[in-house]
Amino acid sequence: MTVPAMPRLDPELFRRQAHQVADWMADYLRDVSRYPVQPSVLPGEIRAQLPERPPAEAEEFSRIMADFERIIVPGMTHWGHPGFFGYFPANTSPPSILAEMLTAALGAQCMSWSTSPAATELEQVTLGWLRRMLGLPEGFTGVIQDTASTATLVAFITARDQALGRASGRAVGELTAYTSEEANFSVTKGARLAGFLPERIRLIETDAQAAMKVDALEATIAADRAAGLSPCCVVSTVGTTGSTAIDPVPAIAEVCRREKLWLHVDAAFAGSAAILPEMRWLLDGAEAADSLVVNPHKWLLVNFDCSAYFVRDPATLLRSFAASAEILKSVYDGTGVNFRDWGIQLGRRFRALKLWFVIRTYGVEGLQAMIREHIRLGHLFASWVEAEPGFELAGPARLATVCFRRVSGGNGPALDPDALNQDLLRRLNASGKVFLTGTRLKGRYVLRLSLGHLTTTEGNVREAWETIRQGA
Amino acid sequence: MTVPAMPRLDPELFRRQAHQVADWMADYLRDVSRYPVQPSVLPGEIRAQLPERPPAEAEEFSRIMADFERIIVPGMTHWGHPGFFGYFPANTSPPSILAEMLTAALGAQCMSWSTSPAATELEQVTLGWLRRMLGLPEGFTGVIQDTASTATLVAFITARDQALGRASGRAVGELTAYTSEEANFSVTKGARLAGFLPERIRLIETDAQAAMKVDALEATIAADRAAGLSPCCVVSTVGTTGSTAIDPVPAIAEVCRREKLWLHVDAAFAGSAAILPEMRWLLDGAEAADSLVVNPHKWLLVNFDCSAYFVRDPATLLRSFAASAEILKSVYDGTGVNFRDWGIQLGRRFRALKLWFVIRTYGVEGLQAMIREHIRLGHLFASWVEAEPGFELAGPARLATVCFRRVSGGNGPALDPDALNQDLLRRLNASGKVFLTGTRLKGRYVLRLSLGHLTTTEGNVREAWETIRQGA
Repeated sequence: MTVPAMPRLDPELFRRQAHQVADWMADYLRDVSRYPVQPSVLPGEIRAQLPERPPAEAEEFSRIMADFERIIVPGMTHWGHPGFFGYFPANTSPPSILAEMLTAALGAQCMSWSTSPAATELEQVTLGWLRRMLGLPEGFTGVIQDTASTATLVAFITARDQALGRASGRAVGELTAYTSEEANFSVTKGARLAGFLPERIRLIETDAQAAMKVDALEATIAADRAAGLSPCCVVSTVGTTGSTAIDPVPAIAEVCRREKLWLHVDAAFAGSAAILPEMRWLLDGAEAADSLVVNPHKWLLVNFDCSAYFVRDPATLLRSFAASAEILKSVYDGTGVNFRDWGIQLGRRFRALKLWFVIRTYGVEGLQAMIREHIRLGHLFASWVEAEPGFELAGPARLATVCFRRVSGGNGPALDPDALNQDLLRRLNASGKVFLTGTRLKGRYVLRLSLGHLTTTEGNVREAWETIRQGA
Repeated sequence: MTVPAMPRLDPELFRRQAHQVADWMADYLRDVSRYPVQPSVLPGEIRAQLPERPPAEAEEFSRIMADFERIIVPGMTHWGHPGFFGYFPANTSPPSILAEMLTAALGAQCMSWSTSPAATELEQVTLGWLRRMLGLPEGFTGVIQDTASTATLVAFITARDQALGRASGRAVGELTAYTSEEANFSVTKGARLAGFLPERIRLIETDAQAAMKVDALEATIAADRAAGLSPCCVVSTVGTTGSTAIDPVPAIAEVCRREKLWLHVDAAFAGSAAILPEMRWLLDGAEAADSLVVNPHKWLLVNFDCSAYFVRDPATLLRSFAASAEILKSVYDGTGVNFRDWGIQLGRRFRALKLWFVIRTYGVEGLQAMIREHIRLGHLFASWVEAEPGFELAGPARLATVCFRRVSGGNGPALDPDALNQDLLRRLNASGKVFLTGTRLKGRYVLRLSLGHLTTTEGNVREAWETIRQGA
């Protein structure tokens, strides 16, 4: 029996491998469009190529990289493919990737000021930058959460604790939460995880534009109060996942002020567009919110995960999330910010670095130019749909997400319009050239093209449209 | 006014920059010991070097890297420094860093099987490997959570929903949760976040070894039942943060079985040692747990964040966390696993890749050799402490974490022993040569040296001990 090799650090071996990986990364970014956007694998096919048991002995790096290239890469959905128009983007960009490399090498755990002073302060600085870019008032303070789903859960927990702390004897079972029927499903999930009873989570009706009806919100709150319940929290959406519909936040904020309810604004995707002076209206009313989330990993070229969570009063957050132990104590606890107290996780990656690299590399004006171009391309695509017989827009193209549908099946037998569009989507995505998602708006199945990648050009959008037309 | 540059992707520019960053990373890994472990900055000093406003225009990469090297790096606590013996490690290793680079370049969002087939199946495969390495029975299924704090919250939410679902009309306010007074603070925090009332969270007394007293647990449960409350969940710890104390999980599991309580095992740090045949006993009883967490980012050379959460019955998890929407639907929903339904976050990074790279690069035997060596070094350090006049061990060195204290202040005036050790810790950490943490065990302040890094050698541990002796 040979003695197993003790793992050790060989910086020069790492250097050679890191250069090899750097080349692979650059090749991938250059060649990503050669892959089908989605692979044609079936569940279990990747797994079947991998051993069930871990290797007892060390394996060569070249063999691992070869398996990565042979088994993993062809089995990925390529989110950075220029034909990826699904969901909302999970972005990447060269400066963000470079920063992720540095974050990985530093390997710091940024739970407290003292465990990572520079990471903590860079998070304060970059979220201060983002606050200014979004035109949020000075009173707002930001912290990076991993995702908008987490941010929403954090908002619900904070709102819940504030409501229960205010009126002792109240139970979470009496609390009610409000969002629109077009809100992301993670809002309902977040409320449930925070302990709100499913039957106390109200999905408020939306208008023809898929925006929350404020009179319906008011009526529901009044009915809940009349029933002896305790209205607690409203989540309004700026840019719904379905169709980037925009709730009337100023009017909702006024209701929340009057009713003393927590207002969380979910601007995960669309919020980034508020860095454009001409789109700043998107966040009108947000200055009155208690919390707000915008995801730089969606439309600001920052790698997933990086969700910017802003609160009007950090003390409310700290009341729910601050907790410590002797081992965590530091002489700087009074003066340095401990971001572990601002959310669920004790452990935190150094995520501010990529935000810093991205904002500096492109400058605010560069990021503005990109979002402006994406909005122009969204409107351009919508104009093509509108001009095309057999297609219709399923709503206005507000930002860079366009919902549309095929309305006639050509000369063949008449098809159910939903089935027609589901079938079209299946065929488009199977082509490997584009990837779109479908959704339901007011009960009707529609296709949805969403822009937002660094790489998206007018040429890509035009190709996508040609693929869609040919598919139909 | 010039037109701002549109951000665009230049793969060859990225290639040059990535090579430059790769060299920086290798240099950093080679030279990390030249930095003080903790910087000597004060809160606000980093921030003061950074502009309050974001740059309007694009900046050169060379300038950003220069600022990174000049402002950020000297302001970091270096978790990979060979003198870092604080908390538990947040690990890194070359294969893990290389995988993080690839993850960043792929930029995939791994919420669903269809959005990342290979990432999903690699997560299944690598957690299957880890399950076997830890000697957990086949029935356990794993999913990667970001941190143990999140895993604990997930366990509490699952236990809560199961308890409330079982008995309709019950409210979360009646549920009680149990953990030991030595459990990590995140256990109490997790229970609170899940809606357990603070006054219903029981911190069970521990024995002289800092392990939960099972008779005290049983008595507390009985008293709670007598008071009309609903015992719900026990969190037992294998390897407490303070002193790696080990709760008697088999006996606790028997109580949970009899009382029909959810059992979560927090083996975040120590669990990794169960990959050694001679340490497999650490997880005795865990086969009866409902959920268990082990952090490969702590002691298995995987970069933070990578927390392996195992459950005995995924259906319990799905009942609390599964949620979907039309836009997320896929024809593979029945056959491919959607890990978004296994936790809080909708969005998920491709974290299985680094686990795969690490296990293959070192092999199970290599990882075993490393942990075995760390345990040997822990015992060696403990033997030095024991032999040294003026020092004492504050408990047995079970694994690679040693708690000890200075017991006399030399020839000067007698000092309060807690103050003596706090003062020693302050001076040690200010030296920049080592970083240790302090904690309280049974009310007494003790110092704590924790091993677990790839780079830790006997020479480093000896140097640390010399620094400590000189400091005293």
